[in-house]
Amino acid sequence: MRDTFYKYIENLQDEITEKLEAVDGKVKFQQDIWKRKEGGGGRTRVIENGDVFEKGGVNISAVHGHLPEAMQNYFNVRDCDFFACGLSLVLHPKNPMVPTVHANFRYFEMYDQQNNIVDQWFGGGQDLTPYYLFEEDAIHFHKVSKNACDKHGDNLYETYKEKCDDYFWNSHRDEARGIGGLFFDYLKPTENKSLQNIYDFVTEVANQFLEAYVPIVEKRKNLSYHQKQRDWQEIRRGRYVEFNLVHDKGTLFGLKTNGRIESILMSLPPYVQWQYNHHPEPNSDEAKLLEVLKSPKNWV
Amino acid sequence: MRDTFYKYIENLQDEITEKLEAVDGKVKFQQDIWKRKEGGGGRTRVIENGDVFEKGGVNISAVHGHLPEAMQNYFNVRDCDFFACGLSLVLHPKNPMVPTVHANFRYFEMYDQQNNIVDQWFGGGQDLTPYYLFEEDAIHFHKVSKNACDKHGDNLYETYKEKCDDYFWNSHRDEARGIGGLFFDYLKPTENKSLQNIYDFVTEVANQFLEAYVPIVEKRKNLSYHQKQRDWQEIRRGRYVEFNLVHDKGTLFGLKTNGRIESILMSLPPYVQWQYNHHPEPNSDEAKLLEVLKSPKNWV
Repeated sequence: MRDTFYKYIENLQDEITEKLEAVDGKVKFQQDIWKRKEGGGGRTRVIENGDVFEKGGVNISAVHGHLPEAMQNYFNVRDCDFFACGLSLVLHPKNPMVPTVHANFRYFEMYDQQNNIVDQWFGGGQDLTPYYLFEEDAIHFHKVSKNACDKHGDNLYETYKEKCDDYFWNSHRDEARGIGGLFFDYLKPTENKSLQNIYDFVTEVANQFLEAYVPIVEKRKNLSYHQKQRDWQEIRRGRYVEFNLVHDKGTLFGLKTNGRIESILMSLPPYVQWQYNHHPEPNSDEAKLLEVLKSPKNWV
Repeated sequence: MRDTFYKYIENLQDEITEKLEAVDGKVKFQQDIWKRKEGGGGRTRVIENGDVFEKGGVNISAVHGHLPEAMQNYFNVRDCDFFACGLSLVLHPKNPMVPTVHANFRYFEMYDQQNNIVDQWFGGGQDLTPYYLFEEDAIHFHKVSKNACDKHGDNLYETYKEKCDDYFWNSHRDEARGIGGLFFDYLKPTENKSLQNIYDFVTEVANQFLEAYVPIVEKRKNLSYHQKQRDWQEIRRGRYVEFNLVHDKGTLFGLKTNGRIESILMSLPPYVQWQYNHHPEPNSDEAKLLEVLKSPKNWV
């Protein structure tokens, strides 16, 4: 499975970066290959200063070796080896009418001292962070997510949609990071579901990522905007930074387990503002977004 | 002591904000009084869009009540009441030739169920974060810090200077946040030092804050700079954000114990950039700063 899934994300990275380059039209992804001292490495692809994408990354990595102590404590295990691979992407568009998107698809294996697999699971998801809310965009993103889920079981969409709202909750602000999507973790084989079944589900979602996001970008990328809207986007990007640095488990794991910093922090937006005690005008478009972030909605 | 120190920081806040307004010349601090639901509150003073200070805050607070669970776990105690008060300031100048500064002076008491004081201590310090290194400024800041320490004991400066370098270490970047200063915590009465002795020391340092910082501001605030230097300042401010949100105990405590978010996060800079894998030109002024941040120096 580790080889199968790694080959899959290699191809997916090619497919996604090619499509996004075509959407942007101006700049290409720059690639960095890196090695992890303790085992494994990655292929980071970053896009900057595009016509559409101001900054973004579509990264894959496959790392292995002895499970670092911070992760041993987290998983409550001792003296294990591990293998982890995944694709992780974040795109920060220039135009505040185009939402930021994040997606991640990952696979994890743990081994005992005799190198037997003692645990294995998939995780991942995709979620959208608009600066201005176009309800039809939110509905589109969630519908595509639901279609992918529905092929693999009842209530998968409902379950993972709720997990997404829970996970991307900026608790110190009492608001969601964005308008959600899907979030799943520790998907392990059971009596009713083989590892292959789970692989089929995860890759189904991943295969539909471009369909979920690109039509929204195409629809909004040429809308005009003014400086105040750009300021609002940069202020909201500050909340994105707060979530990723204070709450996001993936980011904190990376920082505490000697991951490649520049690949982990490619998720941070290019230009960000913090204004003291900023509140949008009542009944403005900005206030309408906040309302939805304060109490997540059902979109389909 | 709690009343004595609170009166002291009330006056100190007045003194510092008056002086900084005079230095800025354009804008005044805006004041917000806030109450904490569980007990106590604060007086937040924020300056924004000044000629000299792009954003900053000089805040005092005094909070009390039942010790929140997160802090019980941190201090490894159960069912205590507490009182905490302090002054906390961060100033982000507009001109990249003027360093950012942070200072904090705080006092903490813990009580048992019969309301007896079971523990009490002072903490605090001051530290400087330049974007361009003027060695004479670093020397000045450290000399004033040392003078304040030397009146209260041998090796205090050396001890607290080293603690400062240790504390403000951005471990995931393997570099210091700035060029240091003083950091002390859990200063408790001993056989040789009364609580009054410690109060005298902490207020000595606090009284010299303006002398440590303002001459540097006056010297650099009218230097000219160009956009590339401003970009560098905004990129370095990103590291400041990373430290405060990932590593700073005060910030994380505040966020996890229901503190007033806007008062805590006033420390975040107004305009910030994250560029992928940014490295300054070899032998540039920017590279020279990084060298010093990678291996903290002795300045006096």
